[in-house]
Amino acid sequence: MSDLYERAPARGPGLRLHLNENTAGCSPQVLDAMRAVTAKQAADYPDYDATERACADWLGVEPNRLLLTNGLDEGIYSTAVAWLQRFDSPQVAEAIVVEPAYALFAASASVVGASVIRVGPGAGLSFPLAETLAAIGPSTRVVFIASPANPSGMLVTTDEVKAVAAALPAGAIVFLDEAYVEFAGATFAGELDSCPNVLLGRTFAKAYGLAAVRAGYLVGAGEIIERVRSVTLPFSVNVFALAAMCAAIQDGDYVKWYVAQVDASRRRIYETCKRLGLDSWPSQANFVLVRVGPEAPAIVEALAARGVFVRDRSSMPGCAGCIRITAGLVDHTAACLTELEALCGKG
Amino acid sequence: MSDLYERAPARGPGLRLHLNENTAGCSPQVLDAMRAVTAKQAADYPDYDATERACADWLGVEPNRLLLTNGLDEGIYSTAVAWLQRFDSPQVAEAIVVEPAYALFAASASVVGASVIRVGPGAGLSFPLAETLAAIGPSTRVVFIASPANPSGMLVTTDEVKAVAAALPAGAIVFLDEAYVEFAGATFAGELDSCPNVLLGRTFAKAYGLAAVRAGYLVGAGEIIERVRSVTLPFSVNVFALAAMCAAIQDGDYVKWYVAQVDASRRRIYETCKRLGLDSWPSQANFVLVRVGPEAPAIVEALAARGVFVRDRSSMPGCAGCIRITAGLVDHTAACLTELEALCGKG
Repeated sequence: MSDLYERAPARGPGLRLHLNENTAGCSPQVLDAMRAVTAKQAADYPDYDATERACADWLGVEPNRLLLTNGLDEGIYSTAVAWLQRFDSPQVAEAIVVEPAYALFAASASVVGASVIRVGPGAGLSFPLAETLAAIGPSTRVVFIASPANPSGMLVTTDEVKAVAAALPAGAIVFLDEAYVEFAGATFAGELDSCPNVLLGRTFAKAYGLAAVRAGYLVGAGEIIERVRSVTLPFSVNVFALAAMCAAIQDGDYVKWYVAQVDASRRRIYETCKRLGLDSWPSQANFVLVRVGPEAPAIVEALAARGVFVRDRSSMPGCAGCIRITAGLVDHTAACLTELEALCGKG
Repeated sequence: MSDLYERAPARGPGLRLHLNENTAGCSPQVLDAMRAVTAKQAADYPDYDATERACADWLGVEPNRLLLTNGLDEGIYSTAVAWLQRFDSPQVAEAIVVEPAYALFAASASVVGASVIRVGPGAGLSFPLAETLAAIGPSTRVVFIASPANPSGMLVTTDEVKAVAAALPAGAIVFLDEAYVEFAGATFAGELDSCPNVLLGRTFAKAYGLAAVRAGYLVGAGEIIERVRSVTLPFSVNVFALAAMCAAIQDGDYVKWYVAQVDASRRRIYETCKRLGLDSWPSQANFVLVRVGPEAPAIVEALAARGVFVRDRSSMPGCAGCIRITAGLVDHTAACLTELEALCGKG
């Protein structure tokens, strides 16, 4: 992907707390479902029908309001292709990205030639509602918002999303990335009927532990979904993802258990930060942003040398001196915090 | 995908000879490799490195000349995004599609706003070299060619591809789709060094029986590959595809065995056609195009009613009255031919 998307540095074996993955892995039931795929099923073009129906039922929407995607990344990319190309218009389409944000929003917009308008964060990484509204203009086509936001982990309220959606010109949409919604207490899903210009992006990568399987989906108004579908490859979702999604939605207990682990891990991180005198953000996601100070890059490398990988976010807007720690299994979090204390608690 | 890409009608259980799939399924070794993926591997973002290196070694190219893709479809789509967008140019980019062709060539070009120039087939579905050369102009950016071609199964010669490549304006490329190359006696791969404006597309979907796993790749000059990579999602290839590709290239015997089955199946189809007085095309792929006459759509439906699915291609340029039969395991082919004889041999 373009220069705007910087892959995390490759790491060897160690405790991966740098990519907000599920540190427990996917559920045994989901693994069984994937291992049940046969040699013949692997050879036939994937059939989405059963998974589409099951996921639509699970979400309580009509199937025409759902699009399965090759990870949520494909949903973001296809949205950019569908909304942000220039074609015959003399005006370049504009994408508004509320920073700090997932790099793929801006990268996808740039790939199709859109102009990216970056709105900086409010105080303490709060959602900059007034600035976002002020950035909206006649060429605005997509506003990318994540809730919970990444890397702060904080929610954008329903009222804030509604205010942005209401201010958009005709034909423009809010792309609301809810990749971490299972860890949060709130979703915008119930508002979609009253806000048909909001497109919801979701994934099985995080809470369900399926990042490597590539299983995401979009939910929105029928016309919005149809427009994305019309630019999305007809067979982009693989048979393992289709089997995994069906099994995952039937195994709610696993996600409940994992979300509780994440919640306990977040509290451990807050406690340690408090003890060490480090600022952190109240997260509704499976990660916590921690301000360790100007030594952030060195601390990330020192932790890596001790076999614990966390992400340096110090160069992102509003995140000076910050690292992001994935909150997964409590044991993993505890191991990370032990090393962090050893490094930061010396003073 | 856009209206230009028409998915084959959904079919229930039966003998699938309509999508040029591997009717034997993937190899047991490949299935084992996919089933060895762990719950934790499923949860971590996929790591391409080992598979990229193994595939590059296998192909005898430097890794920077190879791009793994989410099926060859993604390679086609990304090529369209990279080459056929308009951006600030006043001219619409042109894609030349040599018909009859895989529908995704034109569909991908259309999605990014390119103009699609369709060149009709030569006599007997031969490659229309003069017409293709005549269609090339200053706005030409990509010429899509498949060899073996689909649905004829016939090869486009190295000299023909070279002639097209030599006639292109600066910056334009030939996208050479070799999805069926394993069934053919020839590949363009050895010519890439002398023709750096040819981009080769390949897949594990067909000979390797991995259509549902989504495992394709592009090979070309370093700058060409880098340009496609810059618009391709960084994690579009799933962990099962990565594991499968590594295992597949180590199991050459399976492909040899399957290619021999396909070869025997093609000969069976030719023999039956001869006996029934039906024209067919000499195929270098895992399918044979057969002219059954104006009843083609009815014959496709009658075969489906008997549990055998073949593809109606009668509406494609130069294919009036034609159906396409996948040539897979000899037993499968024989079962299909028995039904075809029962339908067409009555007269």
